[in-house]
Amino acid sequence: MRISTFLNVHLVSDSTGETLNAVLRAVAPLFEGVTPLEHSYYLVRSRRQLDRVLAEIESFPGVVLFTIAAHDLRDVLVDHCKRLGIPALPLLDQVLTMWEHHLKMRAGEKTGSKQALDENYFRRIDALNYTMAHDDGQMVHEFNQAEVVLVGVSRTSKTPTSIYLANRGIRTGNFPLVPKAPIPQALLELNKPLVVGLRVSPDRLIAIRRNRLLSLNADATSEYVDEDAVREEITDANRLFERQNWPVIDVTRRSIEETSAAILNLLADRNAK
Amino acid sequence: MRISTFLNVHLVSDSTGETLNAVLRAVAPLFEGVTPLEHSYYLVRSRRQLDRVLAEIESFPGVVLFTIAAHDLRDVLVDHCKRLGIPALPLLDQVLTMWEHHLKMRAGEKTGSKQALDENYFRRIDALNYTMAHDDGQMVHEFNQAEVVLVGVSRTSKTPTSIYLANRGIRTGNFPLVPKAPIPQALLELNKPLVVGLRVSPDRLIAIRRNRLLSLNADATSEYVDEDAVREEITDANRLFERQNWPVIDVTRRSIEETSAAILNLLADRNAK
Repeated sequence: MRISTFLNVHLVSDSTGETLNAVLRAVAPLFEGVTPLEHSYYLVRSRRQLDRVLAEIESFPGVVLFTIAAHDLRDVLVDHCKRLGIPALPLLDQVLTMWEHHLKMRAGEKTGSKQALDENYFRRIDALNYTMAHDDGQMVHEFNQAEVVLVGVSRTSKTPTSIYLANRGIRTGNFPLVPKAPIPQALLELNKPLVVGLRVSPDRLIAIRRNRLLSLNADATSEYVDEDAVREEITDANRLFERQNWPVIDVTRRSIEETSAAILNLLADRNAK
Repeated sequence: MRISTFLNVHLVSDSTGETLNAVLRAVAPLFEGVTPLEHSYYLVRSRRQLDRVLAEIESFPGVVLFTIAAHDLRDVLVDHCKRLGIPALPLLDQVLTMWEHHLKMRAGEKTGSKQALDENYFRRIDALNYTMAHDDGQMVHEFNQAEVVLVGVSRTSKTPTSIYLANRGIRTGNFPLVPKAPIPQALLELNKPLVVGLRVSPDRLIAIRRNRLLSLNADATSEYVDEDAVREEITDANRLFERQNWPVIDVTRRSIEETSAAILNLLADRNAK
């Protein structure tokens, strides 16, 4: 029997906690047999809010990761943790120091609300709206305004991949290849966006689709999961990718994030040219 | 005239780069007048891939932030940057050291691909799928399986907020309040999810909607933007929130991330009870 260690992790942010969250997701899996118990506090900007955090840290001792710009609040948090013997790490300090040295200037003390409303932020919201409106082959005639267009057969994770790219600020459309359905000329003639074909192995696809049908209580004998039909469907898709000279990413063993990262790499390569 | 300083920022990850990205988004706005030029390299797992990165770092000197677990690759990157006089920061090292001390164990050297496929990952994908399928009042009869349900009039950012929450692993449904349209009984009887009303100021809402109509080249004289009609619409919504005893978040001056963070705080409060 494996015994799991539980670790209370307190994430304290004066902003939206995205950085702390990403760090926890990256670090936690590196410690086998350790189950982090996450305690998150966002938008902590007053002493009153911080006092509630301190009480909970005291009740659930563990480690503290924080991003707080205001010096008075930081000091209270750090002192309190020191007295409790709880390690508390100001997550961004090293990065800030590095930038300050390199740029020979001091970082300001802006908190999240100002931050969030910068250009980058609006770009991401715009990308998200665009991506939602151009999901699943909607509005193909506007696909030339996308930065990335994903093409693939059903169940190749086009939608979640599109949303992840949108979160990175990339306007993404996606188009489902459906057996025997015509492919719009507008898709074949795209010249602005990076069009990427999503490839998948037939065995994997059949397994995914069977599960999908099960979860919908649907009949599992249709062409949608017939082995020969699925193989033909995939061969047709791969031929299309080749004919169009679209780069292809095999999603068979890739997570959404990895597929997205590979697409961002392709985009960077293209922009570098 | 303000002169902007440009800073080459190289983000090098053996995984999907989400942490590096979040850090850049948090740090960059703190340096006024500095425009970061982002160079991202994801899934860097071989010497050949790293050599391309090194060449680009050399061509565009600046700062380097990295998350690379494999010691041989790290060493090459660090040595190279040292020789070039370029600061390179291993972003997660401090956090790893802190956990190692606290837990009295060593972190493994897993890279991203393994990491990404943990339980947390599947939870997020599931949340994303759920949220897409329950956007904009779709499938209200399944809303009891959501963790959060957002209710608000048109243009209160229900969809992007839902997607952000889904990215944090929260199954989120949302329901649009449309003047004179009936409200389904199923929505009023929800007992499992946290239902949150999104409130907005009439002036702000009218401004947003006017812009929206402009961008659609639509007629801007409809009830959709009529001042009295909009005020009544908002009053009705606020009354509903009160009658139902739903907590309310004012989105007037909040970014999507801030609204989401406030909702996550509400959720944490509720779960703590």
